[in-house]
Amino acid sequence: MSHTPPSGEPVAVALAPRDDALLRDAIERAGGHVVGLDAEDPAVGLVWQGGPAEFPAALPASVRWVQLPSAGVERWFTSGVLERHPDVEFTSAAGAYATTVAEHALALLLAGVRYLPAQIGTQTWSEELFAPHVGTLRESTVTIVGAGGIGRTLIPMLGALGAHVVAVNRSGTPVPGALETVAVAQLGEVWAQTDHVVIAAPATPATRHLVGADALGALKPTSWVVNVARGDLLDTDAAVAALTLGAIGGVGLDVTDPEPLPDGHPLWSLPNAIITPHVANPPQRQAGAYADRVAANVARFAAGQELIALVDREQGY
Amino acid sequence: MSHTPPSGEPVAVALAPRDDALLRDAIERAGGHVVGLDAEDPAVGLVWQGGPAEFPAALPASVRWVQLPSAGVERWFTSGVLERHPDVEFTSAAGAYATTVAEHALALLLAGVRYLPAQIGTQTWSEELFAPHVGTLRESTVTIVGAGGIGRTLIPMLGALGAHVVAVNRSGTPVPGALETVAVAQLGEVWAQTDHVVIAAPATPATRHLVGADALGALKPTSWVVNVARGDLLDTDAAVAALTLGAIGGVGLDVTDPEPLPDGHPLWSLPNAIITPHVANPPQRQAGAYADRVAANVARFAAGQELIALVDREQGY
Repeated sequence: MSHTPPSGEPVAVALAPRDDALLRDAIERAGGHVVGLDAEDPAVGLVWQGGPAEFPAALPASVRWVQLPSAGVERWFTSGVLERHPDVEFTSAAGAYATTVAEHALALLLAGVRYLPAQIGTQTWSEELFAPHVGTLRESTVTIVGAGGIGRTLIPMLGALGAHVVAVNRSGTPVPGALETVAVAQLGEVWAQTDHVVIAAPATPATRHLVGADALGALKPTSWVVNVARGDLLDTDAAVAALTLGAIGGVGLDVTDPEPLPDGHPLWSLPNAIITPHVANPPQRQAGAYADRVAANVARFAAGQELIALVDREQGY
Repeated sequence: MSHTPPSGEPVAVALAPRDDALLRDAIERAGGHVVGLDAEDPAVGLVWQGGPAEFPAALPASVRWVQLPSAGVERWFTSGVLERHPDVEFTSAAGAYATTVAEHALALLLAGVRYLPAQIGTQTWSEELFAPHVGTLRESTVTIVGAGGIGRTLIPMLGALGAHVVAVNRSGTPVPGALETVAVAQLGEVWAQTDHVVIAAPATPATRHLVGADALGALKPTSWVVNVARGDLLDTDAAVAALTLGAIGGVGLDVTDPEPLPDGHPLWSLPNAIITPHVANPPQRQAGAYADRVAANVARFAAGQELIALVDREQGY
C-alpha cells in the first residue's frame, strides 16, 4: 500500500458527486471526516457514488484512493477513468453485494429446476403434465464460473441443498467448500460433467462468451444456466439456439447482452427463459451494503491496511 | 415395540398390492425376504404401495407391521384402515420425502420474495418497476409451522440464506437450528413478528385452518405464505381475501383446498399466487426415497429396533 500510515488525524474523505446521509455516516463511523473535493482540507480519499461519465477529468493531487460504487468495473476501464489516474488506487464494491446477488442466483436456479415458469403461467391443475419435469438440486453438480464474492457466497447455499459445486477460477487454486476447482483454461472439460451452470465471473475482454455454443452443446436437456454477472459472459445467440432446440433446460438471466434486452428479442418469448431486469442487487439493498463497504475501507485506509477489492489494472477487475 | 427380537431368520415381508423391483430389492438388501400375503411362510411385515381403498379388509394374523407409502396418513384414519387393524403397527413415509419437499418449499418462497411471478410474465425490460419489490430472505424471520422431517430439513437451507427460523411444534420443545421454538397453542403471538410462513405440519382435525384470517391479517404486505403440507391447513378463502386486499405479499401453494384446485378458482388468476399441482414430491423421486425408507424399516424390524415414523393413533399422524 502506498498511502501514509495513520497519523492520529481523522482521514479526510470527499463524498461526490453528491452528498448522502448514509455514506456520510459510514465515513464518520469509520473515523473519517467528510470534506469537499476542492476543499482547503485536501481529501486523501474519494467515495464516489456516480457513474464514469460524470467522474472528474482531474483530481486534487492529494487524492490517493477512490472507492467506486459498482462491483464490476469494466466501464471504468473502457471510459478511460482508470487510465487518466494512474497513480490513484481504485477500489470497487466487488463482493459487497454478494449476498443478495447469490440469493437471486439461487432463486433463478431453483425456479428453473423446479419447473416454476411453466407452472406460474398455467391456470389449470396439471399434475401429470408438470411432475415429470420437476427436478432437484440434491446430488446435482453445479458449476460456478467465477469464485469471487458471489460465487463463494453461493457455495454454502447450494451445499445446504445437497448440490455438489465445481468452482472455476483463473488459477485452479482450490476454493473452500467446492468439491472441485477447475482453472478457466480447463473450462471446456467441465460442461459434460455438470448439471447446471451459474455465471458469476467479472466481465473482461477475456471472459466474453465464456459460456458459448460449445458449452451449451455439451450440457444436458435438463441443465439450467444462470447469469448474474454481466450479459456478454454468455453467448446470447447460442443460448437462444440451445433453448429453441431444447438442448438445455433453460436460462435464468438477471443480466443480458444486449442490456436492456430490447422488446421483441427472442429471449422474451422462450418459455424456459426467466429474465429479471438486473434487479439481483436492487437499489433499496445497495445503499446499505455500499455504506458498509465504504466504512470498512475508510477504516482500513486510516489504519494503513490493505483495502478491500482493490482494482487490478492488469487483470481488468 | 411388540415384535419379536431377531431370531437369525430373515424377516418375511409381503409386498402388495403388486410387485415392484425397487421395493423387492430394498427389502432384500435390508435382510428381509419377500413372501406373498397368503403364503405358507407367514408374513410378519407388509410393505404397502397402494392407497387405502384397495387395502385388504383382513390381514393374516402373522402380520404385525405395515409400512404405508405416504407421508401424511389422514386418509388412512378417515377410511377406517387403522381402526380395522388395532393390533398392527403402522409406519408412514413421514420424513422420507422431506428433502425434495423442503427444496420445493424454498423454491416457492424464494420465487415469491424475489418477485419472480410478475417478472416471468413480462416481455419488456422493467427494472424500475420490479426492483423495489425484490426482497431478500437475509435477516428475515421465517416461521415454519410443523417441525417434522420437512421443517427440520428446511431449517439449514434457510440458515444458509441468513434467515432466522421460528419453529412451531406441539410441545414447544426447542427444535435444533431454530432461533426460537413456539408451542402451537401460542401460535397467535407469532404472526406479527414473522416475515414469512412455511406450512409443513401434518393434517389432522386439530390443524385445519391453522393459518386463517387472524394470521393473514397480522402478517406484512410483503409476507409470503408457502404451503407444502395439506391444503386445509391454510384457510383458502381467507388467503384469497388477503391477496385481493394486498394484505400479504403472496402465497406459494403446492397443496390446495379444494384439491385439485378447480378451473376458474380465484387463486388461479391472482398474480401473487404460485400454484404447483402437488408436485413437490414427484413420482420419479418418490420411488427411490420410499425404497430407502422400506430398507431402513425392514432392517430395524429385523433388529427389534424402533421403527421410523410409527403412526400415533392418538395424535392422528
